[in-house]
Amino acid sequence: MIAEALKALDRKEVERLVREVLQQKLRGATPPPAREYGKQAKAQAGGPPNPLVVNVSARHMHVTPEHLEILFGKGAKLSKMKDLYQEGEFASEQLVTLVGPRQRIIPNVRILGPVRNYTQVELSYTDGIYLGIDLPLRISGNHEGTPGITIMGPKGALTLDKGVIRAERHTHMSTEDMNYYGVKDGDQLKLKIDGPCGVVFDRVRVRYHPKVVLEVHIDTDEGNACDLESATHMALIK
Amino acid sequence: MIAEALKALDRKEVERLVREVLQQKLRGATPPPAREYGKQAKAQAGGPPNPLVVNVSARHMHVTPEHLEILFGKGAKLSKMKDLYQEGEFASEQLVTLVGPRQRIIPNVRILGPVRNYTQVELSYTDGIYLGIDLPLRISGNHEGTPGITIMGPKGALTLDKGVIRAERHTHMSTEDMNYYGVKDGDQLKLKIDGPCGVVFDRVRVRYHPKVVLEVHIDTDEGNACDLESATHMALIK
Repeated sequence: MIAEALKALDRKEVERLVREVLQQKLRGATPPPAREYGKQAKAQAGGPPNPLVVNVSARHMHVTPEHLEILFGKGAKLSKMKDLYQEGEFASEQLVTLVGPRQRIIPNVRILGPVRNYTQVELSYTDGIYLGIDLPLRISGNHEGTPGITIMGPKGALTLDKGVIRAERHTHMSTEDMNYYGVKDGDQLKLKIDGPCGVVFDRVRVRYHPKVVLEVHIDTDEGNACDLESATHMALIK
Repeated sequence: MIAEALKALDRKEVERLVREVLQQKLRGATPPPAREYGKQAKAQAGGPPNPLVVNVSARHMHVTPEHLEILFGKGAKLSKMKDLYQEGEFASEQLVTLVGPRQRIIPNVRILGPVRNYTQVELSYTDGIYLGIDLPLRISGNHEGTPGITIMGPKGALTLDKGVIRAERHTHMSTEDMNYYGVKDGDQLKLKIDGPCGVVFDRVRVRYHPKVVLEVHIDTDEGNACDLESATHMALIK
């Protein structure tokens, strides 16, 4: 489906898109936007063993070493812009441009490191509608039947045949956290956000790893729907 | 704040923006997108007197007759593209372009009719971040301390000094509906959306009018966060 749409993208069209991106960069306007922010709940006596941190994942990409070289040139490595909340994870300085089947582009999509053994693009539904991609709701790494996309880097372009998803809301948990909340890997919790745009998110998937710190990830649509920035209280509930 | 930012928008810059819009129109690509859709709950025996309808309000504008003439020329009237769910309300054929303080534009913003005694622009937080406007959360018509924006029409441009909001989630209700749910005008209910991206929205404001049909309005961020299209069940609860 996307492959067909992309056939229509001839060299001239791609050149025009690239020119557009360059023009946008030159004047400092790089739509559409991404907002990355998070919120940490206040610690309470007798409360959970670890502070509840909710972070909004703006659109981003994970990449294999091979794909990184296609986009950024032979021998390319990810360089760290800033550390993320999970140890070892980082926002890289590397940015790519996505080209969707509606011949619209999203520039300045950040690669999150380190490199992985699959390439994956995580978008919000707002992004998906913009690009013309019907995003499947998936846990990271589950790419069966997912759509592809064309990605442009400074040294080359790449067309994935799968790997574009909306990430399922999830919470990273260690054994200590799972014990406290009484859940196991793969279970679902609710995330309650109080505030002017209060929301309870169902189906927040528990993702266990022995070395993670407690962190909920929602996407920009969800972060904007509940106006996470103005939240007055947050809790994970069963 | 916005006025200052707009001072920087000289004639040349505006011309460039207009050219950009025209180019986008010519090739049929008009980012960013707007999705307008709704969902109606299945009727149940012993259930509410009226079917629960939830509609997503994409970004739009209401306009005074005076502002309509500035944008579309002397004597301009709104022409109907399609009826909305509330009797007498309609999506017009008239589209405008918004220019925000980050010198980014949103083209193809639809005017909803009929004309009103105030001009108002309703955007999602995603739109606000894109344009660089910190949107206040308001009930329609409450413009005290709200930001302005520049609006371009085919015949002229206009800079509002206020009237740009994120609309509070709300439900239109008649007396019959308020009696059934046990609420009065201005009260708040919760809207429960079940499905793969299930959400409970707090603070859905009750807006009474004797002649309305039961209808909840949420914005595109909220509609995308809960993936309203894939909802399996919906309910208003206290």
